[in-house]
Amino acid sequence: MRILHTADWHIGKRLAGQSLLDDQAFALDQIVSYIKNNSVDVVVIAGDIYDRVNPSQGAMNLVNTYLKRINLDLKVPIVMISGNHDGKVFLDGNSEWFKATQLYVNTDLSKCYEKLTIGITNFYLLPYIEVTEARVFYKDKSITTFEAAYERILEDIKNEMNHDETNVLVGHLFVKHAKESESEEKMSVGLVEEVSQSLFTDFDYTLLGHLHHPFAITHDTIHYSGSPLKYSFDEAKQPKGFKVIDISANTHEFIPLEGKHEVIEYHGSYKSVVEDKVDVGPRDAYYKFVLTDMESATEPMATLKKLYPNTLVLSRQMDVADYDMNTIDVSEQSDTEIFESFIKKFKDRKPTEFENETFNQTMKEVIHETN
Amino acid sequence: MRILHTADWHIGKRLAGQSLLDDQAFALDQIVSYIKNNSVDVVVIAGDIYDRVNPSQGAMNLVNTYLKRINLDLKVPIVMISGNHDGKVFLDGNSEWFKATQLYVNTDLSKCYEKLTIGITNFYLLPYIEVTEARVFYKDKSITTFEAAYERILEDIKNEMNHDETNVLVGHLFVKHAKESESEEKMSVGLVEEVSQSLFTDFDYTLLGHLHHPFAITHDTIHYSGSPLKYSFDEAKQPKGFKVIDISANTHEFIPLEGKHEVIEYHGSYKSVVEDKVDVGPRDAYYKFVLTDMESATEPMATLKKLYPNTLVLSRQMDVADYDMNTIDVSEQSDTEIFESFIKKFKDRKPTEFENETFNQTMKEVIHETN
Repeated sequence: MRILHTADWHIGKRLAGQSLLDDQAFALDQIVSYIKNNSVDVVVIAGDIYDRVNPSQGAMNLVNTYLKRINLDLKVPIVMISGNHDGKVFLDGNSEWFKATQLYVNTDLSKCYEKLTIGITNFYLLPYIEVTEARVFYKDKSITTFEAAYERILEDIKNEMNHDETNVLVGHLFVKHAKESESEEKMSVGLVEEVSQSLFTDFDYTLLGHLHHPFAITHDTIHYSGSPLKYSFDEAKQPKGFKVIDISANTHEFIPLEGKHEVIEYHGSYKSVVEDKVDVGPRDAYYKFVLTDMESATEPMATLKKLYPNTLVLSRQMDVADYDMNTIDVSEQSDTEIFESFIKKFKDRKPTEFENETFNQTMKEVIHETN
Repeated sequence: MRILHTADWHIGKRLAGQSLLDDQAFALDQIVSYIKNNSVDVVVIAGDIYDRVNPSQGAMNLVNTYLKRINLDLKVPIVMISGNHDGKVFLDGNSEWFKATQLYVNTDLSKCYEKLTIGITNFYLLPYIEVTEARVFYKDKSITTFEAAYERILEDIKNEMNHDETNVLVGHLFVKHAKESESEEKMSVGLVEEVSQSLFTDFDYTLLGHLHHPFAITHDTIHYSGSPLKYSFDEAKQPKGFKVIDISANTHEFIPLEGKHEVIEYHGSYKSVVEDKVDVGPRDAYYKFVLTDMESATEPMATLKKLYPNTLVLSRQMDVADYDMNTIDVSEQSDTEIFESFIKKFKDRKPTEFENETFNQTMKEVIHETN
């Protein structure tokens, strides 16, 4: 029993204004090829099939085309749920007709308890939910966080499920990263959207969508497939692909997908780029350029596009040659000292009384809130 | 073999800003009741299921709900085509899945030749087409009118069809009104969209959508079903419903539908309406008021809505008590005399030289163009 796990197709999404429909088709073609040439018993699409609640005709055409290839031509069952980007009716308006060919869509919280058995595996299809949805559904005002909402939902599913069988949860949510909560200093106060890994221990596998990095979490039974392509320059260095879970063999592997265009964020000198003196990447890649020495450039975007026609973003980088902030060890400084050196660096003066007061007041509030 | 023929649902359409989703559900409920309580072998929906190329989620929900009731719950085959208001992918994106339960959708010109047999009847599903579509499809530059386009399409269908069987064409187009072309003086130069009745003589029945009046044409074998509800104040006095064609008995009947709200255009005196002295209709009807003596009215819309909460349009009617233009027999006047009396009436003076010149020049151009 082999499950192909994918998610976050975001069909219709643009990269800095550039339509990605051809790129998306290029990626989905590779998924279809994989299914043709390998043993796949079911395809799981864990939400965010579309990028918008009201997708365009072009986006709907693309989704329908690939669902048909997988489900009708190759006759492989599909299991899918709605993500936070999906419009429910666009995804499951015709789900009653889909069932006849084993295309199963769930967008309803109330239906996540329905056991769907394919082969030796039971699937529970948990669509993306808002906290308020769960609060209203359970008529329980104490549900004020994602953690509380999912705890309640999963408790109910676990109570109903046969723990001797193989049970797979399909979800679209943000699981807390183990490392972050254990050893690393947290960078943010913590996202209210985050849900503990411990909630999912009773499932043989938890196949997720939402985070675009396939290794956003490294866990034997909890998996993100990641998105099939790079959807922002922040994702430029992420691997892209899908996962294959073999239930019987109890193995999982990541299958990479090739991009139709590379996505590259290049930092460097404008002159060396436009004089073609540096190797920045393939001519047809999608580029974000962050460049120095652009002061005297006229029409820099047009000039760049002559060499790199898919230049999508260009921004100017300030000269940071004398920027030595990184060498200061802030762990040995007080908050006030860090603030003072910041103002010194960028304003070349001491903070004013008002600035100091505002800073201290804000710090007090932050400390109060996080405790 | 009884066919229920409906069209022009225009789900999502608004009447002067008022959502009609509830009204549309009310009408469709009656169609579902009819199907439950009478013998219906197939439902034909002849285009304009939606009102917009990109329907809202609410509109899609409504359409899906009623297609499910008819096709999945009552298990009655449905045959439908796209009209000029429909987005193709919203209508037939999932048509491959629909076929399994005899829900047949066609939005493609290239597929109108495919014979679809249900019971003793062959259906040919001809979606709404643009002239340019036909020109490109046939690679024939001589196709410059709807008439030429439909002539070509129907010739091809007729060549392929078995004339000994029962053949029904489902279309979304504007058939020329027999009376107009024979006896009546044409009011307009003729719409380029119009298509001759004679093109359809080989079909046992031609079931159409596009015109909202169920008797836009009176013909034994060519039928408009009309829209299920009133979609403008111009349609206020039109009967609304659907048709039932009995193929074996060779009969057709019109089944009226009740509106959830009446649609009324009322002309009269503002004072008598707001003083509640006249019977204008039910309190909850959708109203367009065209009223006189509104000169001293303050907040007339709010005042009207207190009595008739669904007042959607209010316009002022000029006082026409002394307007005796109708008593002049213009057929005995020259164009220049008519123009002079018009200026006299509204400006109380003779036309200026410039006005006369402009009028004469324009008339010359009109006469030149119509000859």
